[in-house]
Amino acid sequence: MRTLRLTISYDGTRFVGWQRQAEGVSIQGLLEEALARFDGAPIAVHGAGRTDAGVHALGQVASARLTSAYPTDVVVRGLNACLPQDVRVIGVQEASANFHARFSARSKTYRYLLHNAPTSSPFDRAFVWHVPESLDLNEMRTAAAALVGTHDFAAFRSAGSGTTETVRTITRSELAADTVSGWDDTSRGMLLAYEVSGDGFLRHMVRAIVGTLVEIGRGRRPAASMAALLASGSRAEAGATAPPQGLFLVRVEYD
Amino acid sequence: MRTLRLTISYDGTRFVGWQRQAEGVSIQGLLEEALARFDGAPIAVHGAGRTDAGVHALGQVASARLTSAYPTDVVVRGLNACLPQDVRVIGVQEASANFHARFSARSKTYRYLLHNAPTSSPFDRAFVWHVPESLDLNEMRTAAAALVGTHDFAAFRSAGSGTTETVRTITRSELAADTVSGWDDTSRGMLLAYEVSGDGFLRHMVRAIVGTLVEIGRGRRPAASMAALLASGSRAEAGATAPPQGLFLVRVEYD
Repeated sequence: MRTLRLTISYDGTRFVGWQRQAEGVSIQGLLEEALARFDGAPIAVHGAGRTDAGVHALGQVASARLTSAYPTDVVVRGLNACLPQDVRVIGVQEASANFHARFSARSKTYRYLLHNAPTSSPFDRAFVWHVPESLDLNEMRTAAAALVGTHDFAAFRSAGSGTTETVRTITRSELAADTVSGWDDTSRGMLLAYEVSGDGFLRHMVRAIVGTLVEIGRGRRPAASMAALLASGSRAEAGATAPPQGLFLVRVEYD
Repeated sequence: MRTLRLTISYDGTRFVGWQRQAEGVSIQGLLEEALARFDGAPIAVHGAGRTDAGVHALGQVASARLTSAYPTDVVVRGLNACLPQDVRVIGVQEASANFHARFSARSKTYRYLLHNAPTSSPFDRAFVWHVPESLDLNEMRTAAAALVGTHDFAAFRSAGSGTTETVRTITRSELAADTVSGWDDTSRGMLLAYEVSGDGFLRHMVRAIVGTLVEIGRGRRPAASMAALLASGSRAEAGATAPPQGLFLVRVEYD
């Protein structure tokens, strides 16, 4: 038996999320089926982050134990041959026997993309949240910075989530802005990228933070309200959950 | 009656092309329906370039004659409210009574995107042609430059196309290469953008040029063969037609 560390990119649009569900197609399910076909036996795949339906990944990490002795580059090509085009294995490395993608993770980074322009672009609608109203980026940046540190994030947890431990440490929380460019150079406006790194995230936490940041940007609440929100621990007082399609799991770090 | 010039972006993935067909959804059809609802009477919309099924536009131009006196910004918002998210009107301007998007056009620019990397990206598959083999960019650039000027492009016309006049003037034919970046910063490889401007293009001409350039890049034919191809006028001797999803109508210029 060997343990492999897989790095995976996916367009989450059509999936029920990372995790296997009773119904619908999951990325975990597709990988387990592809590995089973490759290895000739059922294989469990553990992902670092359980991304929700419609959420994407640039660098999800998963662990799996295999019997096959194929070199890692053959595993990459074999898996990609079995997987649909919207899921790509971008790397496979040998890992130590006790490596577990979720429990061994030290830090995760998420990115949320907002397209801030009067008219949406027909090309990026699967990968951004289009916000037509003008936004005060300075207020949003001040509010984002207030999240850095060890806090109780109960105000940003999903309603109905069973987690009781809601303290997390955020090491980075920043908003970057670029004029939209790349191949769609006719799309005016700004592409805003909110990036957040931390030791763990509650369910819907990043999307609740982004929903709150956008309300701050629109002037509906002051930047200083972020600290009060953390102190209150009340989900009802935070902003609405931002839609899933703007969210990407960017990378997972290990010791 | 007033004449309007509309600038339109669209993701061509799910359409039968710009032009109305007996079956399927066309961009022309959607615009005509949206304008009719807006203006209260049937309206004919003429597009500058009749993009094929699966081909996109960043700046398609269309002309239409309306009776309604609404200001242009109201027309933009009204049309976008009627149109699906994958078609966006990005501008409307008043035009002279004899303006016709197709017959008045002086020059068109097309862009074709190639993703040259061992593994495809799950995010851009609707907008690039993924070519995994390594490509000789210098050879491709030499071949692309040979197309500039006034030539008979019969070798690059669609088989079965009825056009008899196959002489066109190309003013620019260039290949740009960037390391893939933007939001998918994990996708290794190069993003190649072939841009071509000219007074007109035969059906499938840009895609046949790109198919030929890729064969040159792969070393299957020399860069110098481009001039011989133009002289031969034989479609059978040129490369295969590149797939539609990498092609964008970028802009149309008028006097």
